[in-house]
Amino acid sequence: MNDRFLRACRRQPVDRTPLWIMRQAGRYLPEYRELRRKVDFLTLCKTPELAVAASLQPLRRFPLDASIIFSDILLPLEALGVRMTFNPGPKLAEPVRTRVQVDALESRPAAEAVPFVADAVRLLRRELDGRTPVIGFCGAPFTLAAYLVQGEGKEGFGAVKTMLFREPATLGHLLEKLTAAMTDYLRLQIAAGAQAVQIFDSWAGLLAPMQYERFALRWVRAIVDGVADLGVPVIYFVNGAPHLLEDAVTSGADVLGLCWRTPLDVAAARVGPGIALQGNLDPHALFAEPAEVTRLAADVLSRVAGRPGHIMNLGHGILPDTPIASVEALVAAVQATARRDAATAPSACTT
Amino acid sequence: MNDRFLRACRRQPVDRTPLWIMRQAGRYLPEYRELRRKVDFLTLCKTPELAVAASLQPLRRFPLDASIIFSDILLPLEALGVRMTFNPGPKLAEPVRTRVQVDALESRPAAEAVPFVADAVRLLRRELDGRTPVIGFCGAPFTLAAYLVQGEGKEGFGAVKTMLFREPATLGHLLEKLTAAMTDYLRLQIAAGAQAVQIFDSWAGLLAPMQYERFALRWVRAIVDGVADLGVPVIYFVNGAPHLLEDAVTSGADVLGLCWRTPLDVAAARVGPGIALQGNLDPHALFAEPAEVTRLAADVLSRVAGRPGHIMNLGHGILPDTPIASVEALVAAVQATARRDAATAPSACTT
Repeated sequence: MNDRFLRACRRQPVDRTPLWIMRQAGRYLPEYRELRRKVDFLTLCKTPELAVAASLQPLRRFPLDASIIFSDILLPLEALGVRMTFNPGPKLAEPVRTRVQVDALESRPAAEAVPFVADAVRLLRRELDGRTPVIGFCGAPFTLAAYLVQGEGKEGFGAVKTMLFREPATLGHLLEKLTAAMTDYLRLQIAAGAQAVQIFDSWAGLLAPMQYERFALRWVRAIVDGVADLGVPVIYFVNGAPHLLEDAVTSGADVLGLCWRTPLDVAAARVGPGIALQGNLDPHALFAEPAEVTRLAADVLSRVAGRPGHIMNLGHGILPDTPIASVEALVAAVQATARRDAATAPSACTT
Repeated sequence: MNDRFLRACRRQPVDRTPLWIMRQAGRYLPEYRELRRKVDFLTLCKTPELAVAASLQPLRRFPLDASIIFSDILLPLEALGVRMTFNPGPKLAEPVRTRVQVDALESRPAAEAVPFVADAVRLLRRELDGRTPVIGFCGAPFTLAAYLVQGEGKEGFGAVKTMLFREPATLGHLLEKLTAAMTDYLRLQIAAGAQAVQIFDSWAGLLAPMQYERFALRWVRAIVDGVADLGVPVIYFVNGAPHLLEDAVTSGADVLGLCWRTPLDVAAARVGPGIALQGNLDPHALFAEPAEVTRLAADVLSRVAGRPGHIMNLGHGILPDTPIASVEALVAAVQATARRDAATAPSACTT
């Protein structure tokens, strides 16, 4: 089994830097666009055979070191009774803005509300047969609240920020419910076979450090604690948060995933050696010529060369129009680390 | 004349911390909404008497320490031949995405393309009669390019990021043209009477440090250099850029304006004593109860109490639905610094 991804999560020696790509099953793949011509996004997510087919597509093209289940962070909100559509961005039937609405949210078990996700994880594990590990995931409570309160994706997510200052107790109540639901949801995925989980905090970077602990980080910590007994590595991806790194590292997660804003050597110095790092090539860098992609990817890799625990990835999801040749250049840059590591630290590969 | 704003820009002693508010003439004021019922946004900007009337509105309500001319950062792009509408966000007639389009941009003098801005500055100076200084402003080249290449405001401004990696020379050429136009535009405003100028870099925070110098900062530095002989303080406002502060401080500007993400004491430690700081209360904090607004504003003020050169402001433009009572609480918090400074550093007020 290819376990270099799981080993890197635990800061153990690896034969080369592992690579996976956020949104690796996505619109930049012609075969994904073909699949989507036949089936809408929600049906794709909710049909285990189709979700698994999408999850496997990038692995057929590229020697990636992890597979991630095809889904969306908002989907498990159905366990709270939230209804939504995607066109292509998410739109909730109704924003959640009052204490009454928060109190009215349901708390159904994920196994009942979104059983198809567990089925898909099980099927994906079987199909992969140990070739790569499977990553499960969920949204972080503040990020989910940002969508729930806004009712859709919107630059700045003003509605949740307004609630934070105007009705902090209401927001706290919402975050508590989301934390319970996401803990249950990750436990379901792990029980079904997920070998690592990632918590996506796409919008925590909208908060100053004074608000981050209370409205974002403590709830992430509760989720990490709530799955700790299951023994799988946890990745905490926090986007747009160069001002929060010293705090974010205290989430308890094994891996801190970073957007492209902070160079990895700077991040490593700030967070210390006790946590693995994931990232962080700018997704837009893949629009450069292949030779420049190689150079930019090598730059990211070199910034933490020799530091135990690096998982190569983009700093955000891969973009729809990304050229396939760029992904190939990224893959080649990562494969070159096998030679580099063999040359500079021969003992690291065999211990 | 009330010169505490200008003195703070130069890190000279002041009797209390000066305050102005980004977008202080805006939709949170009933009298502004009344004005806008009679006249559309572009007409308001382009009619000096109306622009001045809008600029004066917040000063009638609040004892603010600076006035800023009512306009929009995209307006002087008309000097490059760019046409746009506002509804309410900006929309360009055509995005600028190719080298041919960049080469075709005009370079008319601002005095010819947007003479109404200079007229408005002159009229505002006359109306104020020394009561508060007048601030002129422009957009920073990268931020203007973000709008020009995208064609509108859009989260992430993917189009300019794609151009940056795919056609860096084309983007460089565009930035060079924008730099020349904005230098000319600021010189026009200063010649008309602007006593300080602010350069708004709302989107430079989308760049990693590796790209920031080449595609944003060097052009800001060129503008700062290009108006240096005129002797007015320059404020460089860079939004969402906690990862860029050590670089941003080298722009040559007298004042660094910050969004709410970085606490001012942290920022002060990172940028050193040689530059004044402006900001940085979260605009959403004004949705809290007045007592909480007072507490949050006092917290911002206390983080740089005793450090020469602080201009109180929000970390971004004031929001349309902001309660007037919150602005009053903010004003009161700033006025309380007169007592604090008198108590703790009596000599500072008289030197």
